[in-house]
Amino acid sequence: MTYCVAIKLNAGLVFLSDSRTNAGLDQISTFRKMIVYERPDDRFMVLLSAGNLSISQSVREILQVEQLKEHPDGEAITIWNAKSMFDAARVLGAAIRHVYERDAVALKQAGVDFNVSLIFGGQIKGEGMRLFQVYSAGNFIEATPETPYFQAGESKYGKPVLDRVITLNTPLDEAAKCALVSMDSTLKSNLSVGLPLDLVVYEANQFQTDKVVCIDENNPYFRMLRGSWGQKLREVFDSIEDPMWNGEQTDVPLMLQSGRNQALKKITTPQEKLI
Amino acid sequence: MTYCVAIKLNAGLVFLSDSRTNAGLDQISTFRKMIVYERPDDRFMVLLSAGNLSISQSVREILQVEQLKEHPDGEAITIWNAKSMFDAARVLGAAIRHVYERDAVALKQAGVDFNVSLIFGGQIKGEGMRLFQVYSAGNFIEATPETPYFQAGESKYGKPVLDRVITLNTPLDEAAKCALVSMDSTLKSNLSVGLPLDLVVYEANQFQTDKVVCIDENNPYFRMLRGSWGQKLREVFDSIEDPMWNGEQTDVPLMLQSGRNQALKKITTPQEKLI
Repeated sequence: MTYCVAIKLNAGLVFLSDSRTNAGLDQISTFRKMIVYERPDDRFMVLLSAGNLSISQSVREILQVEQLKEHPDGEAITIWNAKSMFDAARVLGAAIRHVYERDAVALKQAGVDFNVSLIFGGQIKGEGMRLFQVYSAGNFIEATPETPYFQAGESKYGKPVLDRVITLNTPLDEAAKCALVSMDSTLKSNLSVGLPLDLVVYEANQFQTDKVVCIDENNPYFRMLRGSWGQKLREVFDSIEDPMWNGEQTDVPLMLQSGRNQALKKITTPQEKLI
Repeated sequence: MTYCVAIKLNAGLVFLSDSRTNAGLDQISTFRKMIVYERPDDRFMVLLSAGNLSISQSVREILQVEQLKEHPDGEAITIWNAKSMFDAARVLGAAIRHVYERDAVALKQAGVDFNVSLIFGGQIKGEGMRLFQVYSAGNFIEATPETPYFQAGESKYGKPVLDRVITLNTPLDEAAKCALVSMDSTLKSNLSVGLPLDLVVYEANQFQTDKVVCIDENNPYFRMLRGSWGQKLREVFDSIEDPMWNGEQTDVPLMLQSGRNQALKKITTPQEKLI
């Protein structure tokens, strides 16, 4: 499987992906799932991919040459000349549909779903940053202020911390830290997600970035983060008082006799009815 | 959907379940998913259920009267006379198979999977506590020292904190707190899980418990837990330093030039090859 997350903030964009690919438990490999497209002072785009690797690799290959032609005599749109990220996302959708036309029938005959999930974001000069989640059918949705992040792959383990921390105003490096904590929780609970990680942080209106790093098990910051997070989480957990079963010893009793919801009736004999 | 978790410790057992049932997003109801069977000084058992509600309700109803007859002239085994939790789990498996025989064909014709997932644990006098996860086919697995907890339903959001905290030696009330934190993360990220919760804590070798509580949105302890956990998690998050992109200002740089894994090459022109 895979875990990818991308976050759009007022200050910029954060992209993070793992690199584990598996076809069954006995066929595990390392494949990078991020591509950075950058033409300084003009456009900066990042593509993250989850799903069937043969499909996502084909999409990435085709995306380099994919052209959308709207009018017979108009200029063909590519990701390199698109005037908006919306148009670039449409080119990506067209690339997916090309792979679908080529492979979907044969995949179906082999009992394999046409399954690919992409996150595509960045900035093209002339407009603000944009972030899209692109589906197998080539359709896509865009991140908004209410939902400033997208995940692909094994998304559930790492979702709670994103929900707790990320807002539009989160600073860039703090959001990168949050993405890494989200990844750490996923790594901890799911074998199909693995190191190394690729992390890119993009500052708004720069149309390029130097903040591109591959994080392996020796990375000093990630080692510190994993250790500290685990240890401090444990301290926080310990600092919250254990439940007290009645109200005499605590302000916050667990057992409350009032309230409309009653404790379960116990079943004590074979003859007893459940309801 | 549902979220249920059960934990087996040296000190006892903890069971927690939510109560939301949904058939699509526009049909949401409250159904309790826990049943406590208790005959003081003889046996204490708890059943948690996830999956298709019509199946799990039928299983619970049938379980009260289900009999396993091994030999023509032997005594039939029920959950009320079983001499071990293993035998009681077999009775539960037989109850599931009875419902399967009755309903599976008609469900399949309607395009509905025969989907039920149960957690069943407790203690019968004469042996130690035991905890089982029981599947749709009536087969089951048992918790061991290496894997002392089982989850059913929406299990991913709440798994990381269990993996970080729970060991065989965790005290009972601390494990209850951990189960509630696990539930809180799930509630926060998944609409299909909802209050009220049913919590039962069982102390080893007591064959009964008074620690049975229904937790709704007014429960003082759960309100405190949710607030404190969210706030302190945030404080821990803030206390970990943000990533520094080079080694001059920090002992734990994010960017590391050495190491065998290199940062991604950027794609800068349409002609460039990906590999």
